[in-house]
Amino acid sequence: MHSRHFMQTPKRIAIVGSGLVGSLLAIYLRKAGHEVEVFDRRKDVRKVEFSGRSINLAMSNRGWKSLRAVGIEDEIKQIALPLDKRAMHVNDKPLYYQKYGKEEEAIFSISRGVLNRKMITLAEDAGAKFRFEEKVWDIDMAEAKLYSGESEEGEWKEYQFDLIFGADGAFSRVRHKMQRQSRFNYSQHFINVGYKELSIAANKDGSHKLDNASFHIWPRGEFMLIAMPNLDGSFTCTLFMPFEGENSFESIKTEKDADLFFQKHFPDINQEIENLKRDFFKNPTSSMVTIKCFPWSYWEKVTLVGDSAHAIVPFYGQGMNAGFEDILVLSQKMKEHGDNWERIFEEYQESRKPNTDAIAELSYRNFVEMSSKTADPDFLLRKKIENWFSNKHPDTWVPLYSRVTFSDKPYAEALAIGDYQRKIMDEVMEIPEIEKKWDSSEVENKILKLLDNKPVFSV
Amino acid sequence: MHSRHFMQTPKRIAIVGSGLVGSLLAIYLRKAGHEVEVFDRRKDVRKVEFSGRSINLAMSNRGWKSLRAVGIEDEIKQIALPLDKRAMHVNDKPLYYQKYGKEEEAIFSISRGVLNRKMITLAEDAGAKFRFEEKVWDIDMAEAKLYSGESEEGEWKEYQFDLIFGADGAFSRVRHKMQRQSRFNYSQHFINVGYKELSIAANKDGSHKLDNASFHIWPRGEFMLIAMPNLDGSFTCTLFMPFEGENSFESIKTEKDADLFFQKHFPDINQEIENLKRDFFKNPTSSMVTIKCFPWSYWEKVTLVGDSAHAIVPFYGQGMNAGFEDILVLSQKMKEHGDNWERIFEEYQESRKPNTDAIAELSYRNFVEMSSKTADPDFLLRKKIENWFSNKHPDTWVPLYSRVTFSDKPYAEALAIGDYQRKIMDEVMEIPEIEKKWDSSEVENKILKLLDNKPVFSV
Repeated sequence: MHSRHFMQTPKRIAIVGSGLVGSLLAIYLRKAGHEVEVFDRRKDVRKVEFSGRSINLAMSNRGWKSLRAVGIEDEIKQIALPLDKRAMHVNDKPLYYQKYGKEEEAIFSISRGVLNRKMITLAEDAGAKFRFEEKVWDIDMAEAKLYSGESEEGEWKEYQFDLIFGADGAFSRVRHKMQRQSRFNYSQHFINVGYKELSIAANKDGSHKLDNASFHIWPRGEFMLIAMPNLDGSFTCTLFMPFEGENSFESIKTEKDADLFFQKHFPDINQEIENLKRDFFKNPTSSMVTIKCFPWSYWEKVTLVGDSAHAIVPFYGQGMNAGFEDILVLSQKMKEHGDNWERIFEEYQESRKPNTDAIAELSYRNFVEMSSKTADPDFLLRKKIENWFSNKHPDTWVPLYSRVTFSDKPYAEALAIGDYQRKIMDEVMEIPEIEKKWDSSEVENKILKLLDNKPVFSV
Repeated sequence: MHSRHFMQTPKRIAIVGSGLVGSLLAIYLRKAGHEVEVFDRRKDVRKVEFSGRSINLAMSNRGWKSLRAVGIEDEIKQIALPLDKRAMHVNDKPLYYQKYGKEEEAIFSISRGVLNRKMITLAEDAGAKFRFEEKVWDIDMAEAKLYSGESEEGEWKEYQFDLIFGADGAFSRVRHKMQRQSRFNYSQHFINVGYKELSIAANKDGSHKLDNASFHIWPRGEFMLIAMPNLDGSFTCTLFMPFEGENSFESIKTEKDADLFFQKHFPDINQEIENLKRDFFKNPTSSMVTIKCFPWSYWEKVTLVGDSAHAIVPFYGQGMNAGFEDILVLSQKMKEHGDNWERIFEEYQESRKPNTDAIAELSYRNFVEMSSKTADPDFLLRKKIENWFSNKHPDTWVPLYSRVTFSDKPYAEALAIGDYQRKIMDEVMEIPEIEKKWDSSEVENKILKLLDNKPVFSV
């Protein structure tokens, strides 16, 4: 008898992009028996200094699950630091902590450079061939041919494949080619906030200067600093700030501007000010964009994975996790449909699209919340009530953050349940004098009653 | 004393695209004293047969106003036919008519080819130079340089200008160049309905086969045929229909399929069936897209006008009108700000963007209404009540269609007032047994009362 899982005929497969999602895909495809070549216009990231425009990664449940299924979870855990809480550096308040979830629940800080190098080596070990410094200039999608070369005008090499994957990020060349098709829906939306990588060095003994099991946040309303620990004792910090306006990247022009800015807003890390200032002027300011498109596939020949299909803003820490989950779903469809690649691609995109739209929406909402609501007393009270109720009824009220971060249920479901919870909280906030009796049994019973009308979710 | 209107220093200006909006812009710029060269990759439309993928144009108030301001309204009126009503060809009902507005209010049917030829000649007469069959391959935006040539790989000619306008339509090359900038917001959204140009020939004596002062509509739910008269006695018809599905372009493959389709759905024009069938297989099926982007301008060097900045679906008949209004607004800003082109472009885009977003939304809503609601009794009752009330109180309740089509108030205002009217109608539709007493004084008074709370609009 045949197994429900088909074996696949080996194919010659090209992956454009050797980033995190491209490398993971290479490992999956090699383990399924395919020939894999990965093209990247950049140099081998193992041989160069990393870019200075990165935000540390927060690996959470979906990411780990996707690594586990291909047998590399343990190896990656060795280069990750678990963070079980936020450390809130609020002005004029002592440092305080917020646990992320239940016991054992944590997100993991990983340096993008360290992880990318490791993933490429694992993909090479699995037998994938990497072609660095080979920019793909054009693609014949119907024929699955790639054209690469030194420059757009110079000689091009032609490569023939059976399938091509676009894993070439938010500004994907592969998607760009698809975009010329009629009836290709596409949007790119930039936010008016940029980011810059900064760093806090290790102590001389190699230890961390701040708690290394926390995600550090300095919320300042329209702008925000975060810091995540690295294995070597340093922290990678990210300053999120509007491009223009009063407190903005544009407004900090001189060393003195920077001094005043850091002194005023981040007094508790003033011993680091020289490093912060140096990085501020050395590192580029990057923009953030939400990209959506559809379809992701061209027949059985070409498909998009990761940021090339669905770039999101980083405020939920889910960009890499969502991309890794793409590969897990794709591999499940490969097992279900064997050599029927058209069906594999079709079901993959149909299954992923509503979920990546949902995480895009949730990430954008987090950005809006962070920049406009962190000082709003109503918003803070709302969060306080939710936490209180959720702690009392952990199985009845799973917070949205936990559904996104610590579960593997679809993002679209998390969004729907989150919207439902928000409606309940809207009603709770209407209770007269709610600010005085927020932790009363009256409020508890009201929420329980409202939850009685809960639509059935598959949780 | 200086006039409030500045004279401008003559500039060398390139316009990419010799369509309707590009030609109108050329006339305005010539009359303001600038040197104007218009590039188009296509042949001179006066020397070739027109494309067979056009929808007849419906010029309305905004279009005429923009032509009037540059002195060419009367000449264009000579090639236009006024339509003061819809002629509704509903199955199993006698033909009936719906007046568009008050006495004297009409939209005007113009053939796109005829109008475009006339506009180019008027622009040439005004001194604009046209460079047909010269495709612009690249633009140096910072330097206002254009590069054209036979092919992308061959030799390019370089042209130096002071300013460049992109009037090159929904798939604009100029916008495409802007899109490579960081922080350029962009979206393209295709609808699942396509269209095809068909035609009804004139009678042998040159007269029209259907009433030539009507916009003819055969609404069929998911698909729809329209016909607009031409000067030569013919009608240009457009068949709007889903690409795929039961009644779709894909489903009509053979002559016999087409016979059955036209016989069944359009019995009252069955004498034209041979022409309709011939056109059906001869003419291409075109897609429809909404395109939004921002910013429209690059410093004081480059700006977008018309479809290149804001392509919309054609279901409100406002695409050309909105593009012409762009040029009128631009010319007003030129008068206000003289040689300060950066400010001209900035105020132009800030003023136009909310309005072109609004007409995009209204056009898309009309598409949804036409395809899903024309058979909904609630929707029809709602329209009936609105018409009845508007006829009784013409100054209090100007229908949305009239605000868009017969006024020159901003589209964004029409959308806002339309939404307000819709909320009132939502309440009216909640009146018990509204279907029996829709034209009672109870309903009339209810609407009047609800209007008392009307926010103040600048109308």
